[in-house]
Amino acid sequence: MDRKILLNEQDIPKQWYNIAADLPTPMLPPLGPDGNPVSPDMLAPVFPMNLIEQEVSTERWIDIPEEVLDILYRWRPAPLRRAVYLERFLDTPAKIYYKDESTSPAGSHKPNTSVPQAWYNKQFGIERLTTETGAGQWGSALSFACSLIGLECKVFMVRISFDQKPFRKLMMQVWGGNCVASPSEETNAGRKILEEMPDTPGSLGIAISEAIEQAVTDPSGKTRYSLGSVLNHVMLHQTIIGLEAKAQLKSVGIDKPDVIIGCAGGGSNFAGLAFPFTQDKINGAEIEIIPCEPTACPTLTRAPFAYDFGDTACTTPLMAMYTLGHAFVPPPIHAGGLRYHGMSPLVCQCVVEGLHNPRAIDQVECYEAALTWARTEGTICAPETSHAVACAIQEAKKAKEEGKEKTILFNYSGHGLMDLKGYEAYLTGKLAPYYLPDEELAKTEECLKDYPPAEMRKTGKW
Amino acid sequence: MDRKILLNEQDIPKQWYNIAADLPTPMLPPLGPDGNPVSPDMLAPVFPMNLIEQEVSTERWIDIPEEVLDILYRWRPAPLRRAVYLERFLDTPAKIYYKDESTSPAGSHKPNTSVPQAWYNKQFGIERLTTETGAGQWGSALSFACSLIGLECKVFMVRISFDQKPFRKLMMQVWGGNCVASPSEETNAGRKILEEMPDTPGSLGIAISEAIEQAVTDPSGKTRYSLGSVLNHVMLHQTIIGLEAKAQLKSVGIDKPDVIIGCAGGGSNFAGLAFPFTQDKINGAEIEIIPCEPTACPTLTRAPFAYDFGDTACTTPLMAMYTLGHAFVPPPIHAGGLRYHGMSPLVCQCVVEGLHNPRAIDQVECYEAALTWARTEGTICAPETSHAVACAIQEAKKAKEEGKEKTILFNYSGHGLMDLKGYEAYLTGKLAPYYLPDEELAKTEECLKDYPPAEMRKTGKW
Repeated sequence: MDRKILLNEQDIPKQWYNIAADLPTPMLPPLGPDGNPVSPDMLAPVFPMNLIEQEVSTERWIDIPEEVLDILYRWRPAPLRRAVYLERFLDTPAKIYYKDESTSPAGSHKPNTSVPQAWYNKQFGIERLTTETGAGQWGSALSFACSLIGLECKVFMVRISFDQKPFRKLMMQVWGGNCVASPSEETNAGRKILEEMPDTPGSLGIAISEAIEQAVTDPSGKTRYSLGSVLNHVMLHQTIIGLEAKAQLKSVGIDKPDVIIGCAGGGSNFAGLAFPFTQDKINGAEIEIIPCEPTACPTLTRAPFAYDFGDTACTTPLMAMYTLGHAFVPPPIHAGGLRYHGMSPLVCQCVVEGLHNPRAIDQVECYEAALTWARTEGTICAPETSHAVACAIQEAKKAKEEGKEKTILFNYSGHGLMDLKGYEAYLTGKLAPYYLPDEELAKTEECLKDYPPAEMRKTGKW
Repeated sequence: MDRKILLNEQDIPKQWYNIAADLPTPMLPPLGPDGNPVSPDMLAPVFPMNLIEQEVSTERWIDIPEEVLDILYRWRPAPLRRAVYLERFLDTPAKIYYKDESTSPAGSHKPNTSVPQAWYNKQFGIERLTTETGAGQWGSALSFACSLIGLECKVFMVRISFDQKPFRKLMMQVWGGNCVASPSEETNAGRKILEEMPDTPGSLGIAISEAIEQAVTDPSGKTRYSLGSVLNHVMLHQTIIGLEAKAQLKSVGIDKPDVIIGCAGGGSNFAGLAFPFTQDKINGAEIEIIPCEPTACPTLTRAPFAYDFGDTACTTPLMAMYTLGHAFVPPPIHAGGLRYHGMSPLVCQCVVEGLHNPRAIDQVECYEAALTWARTEGTICAPETSHAVACAIQEAKKAKEEGKEKTILFNYSGHGLMDLKGYEAYLTGKLAPYYLPDEELAKTEECLKDYPPAEMRKTGKW
């Protein structure tokens, strides 16, 4: 019985897969404030040039440095598991496989990119990375990577999470990360906000502004900023997930899964699993590929495809993506990692091309699925991951109705041991289904009206 | 490079190893309040007869039921890993291997016994298990097992932990466990204590009394009590750890390790790894086997070998073991799982026979080791596990001094993600070394003076 499918160390993928090389239509370029495409040089104060090169690369395969692999070996290749206990419970003819990304020391897929990002920065002569974190997953993953590679790490953590999630902060400290509540007194952006609103709970947008400011204003030039999702090079680093999964499925005689599922906030865990299979789909394979998002933050399922800023403070270049608008304030659902207004432009492009078929699921159905999972498979998944679990259950039930022996593959992006509060809310009946009201979407139109619509390429006018 | 040594599902051990069959001297029997050996019948209201049979068995090998294996497959065989990053950091000629028991859904070795215990109870027609939990590891593990096997689970959690560790309680609830603060209003023992001391923080002793009372007073006879360490059948179930490790080492050409290490509180994770190798030592192999305990609770290194109760309330049979006395109140060190006054009688017997060489390590050295571990190997270990890590580092340094290529094997008994408060205390300089003062040991003599000394077998008189 192939319950756990392992890959030997020597069989780890040696290259990342870059989907930009295979997309039917070239990507729309990021635009500067003047409406012109952003050049690599303009990003140099924020990111090291070796990562900027990856960001804009259209090479299909990019070598993973030996020294990066040496760090990834701590937990990779990650196991591919078959959810036989859930299959039995659902009495489905479907085979449900999941890639277990919860086995990294930080507990999620995030270190797949924090490690190479820290490594490339170190290679470029950088000594210190700054970043922001909401719920704390990314801040932990970057602290972990910097600890092993020998970089200082500064994390601006949204104040309300900083106060409510002391254990995440402690994880970062164990790995030597310096985590401060944002807004802080350490940046102009932070001080300004604190002056105006001393009691603010903070926001991801503010934290991003602080992290970028500290990176670009370091007079030594030895500080850069690091981002845990959305960007092309992040998606690239995560493709190791799907490449491993492909080899693992092959080893048990499965040439391709029929359905691929991942939860999508900024898009990185989903893309990591899905892109190597998307290549097959581009080349003719029949696979349904589903990025799964909350009905409370329905970026891919209900938002327009447009040019928008990546952050609330409008400091990033404009990117062509599905977006609820940079001013969108998502409701406080427990899957903090899925509350982003935008989405990885690469994932968005796949949706535009019809390669991916997004789906939104409500948080109550997700927690119900997470509980079924814990009481059959045995593990406690992250609130974000529960969206992928819920979608896999939907597909397994559908396979039963259709009487089809489908192979379903989903990404188990992280464990939920640091995020049990959402389970408590669910178990005590405090969660209700939430679908974003139409009037909220009207605000999106308003927010985006001054920026070029992404469709301009097709229409030729703005 | 053999960084991660895996075992295929079909190679999982099919039998547990019972060291009672091989001990040079037979075990001293547990005694009842009258000083006479306890018969299996006397334990029947507390445990199901099939587990009592295991408790008193002297069969060398006991079959693991197929259905128990089917549940263990969720995470077993567990990986054996080589700590190459720590080896490099220490620049030691020693090879450091560790058995990774943190990969179970509950995060420790505890489910290795909670699963068979729940299964045997179910087979015996039991519908509900009660237990106590301190820090929450055992309560989580039993809730997990009951959830998968279909038993009700009632956990009495020491009130101070219940209040300070809400996430452990939530883990239990996710698995359907019913966790209440102890003392509770649900038992005579609890009500009596609450009447006398309404603000008591509770204790493991009180919680045990409540759990046993609820098991033995259920008029339906369908409730039993379950214990997570100390007892013979618990050690038996844990031997799957060492049996797997043996097969894994063999697969990379290592016939036997030179040093074996495990932290010891009640003794179960240590015994689980050590007993199968102790058999080899009985048969002539040269292996140093080290149970490692805190200097704050030095049961094996400084306490007398005597007959004593297993619990504070003096409700259990008298067991022959090293003991600091049932009235011993351990200082509040952060490794809650190592604060037990006694120790598994089987482990104690091995120490008496000279098969195991106990060592005590101070908590500051342990956290220092845990931090070194997190910043080299990458993972955050449980405070209990940090004792084994510290001991492994001591041995690796010794191997370097001696210039010997030793093989060190230790048990990585659990992760520390639910127990980060101790790290905080260490990182903020709030932990000091603590060695139990001699005057505390004088209290042990006083506590034990009315009970038969275990040496009576040798002297023939009491």
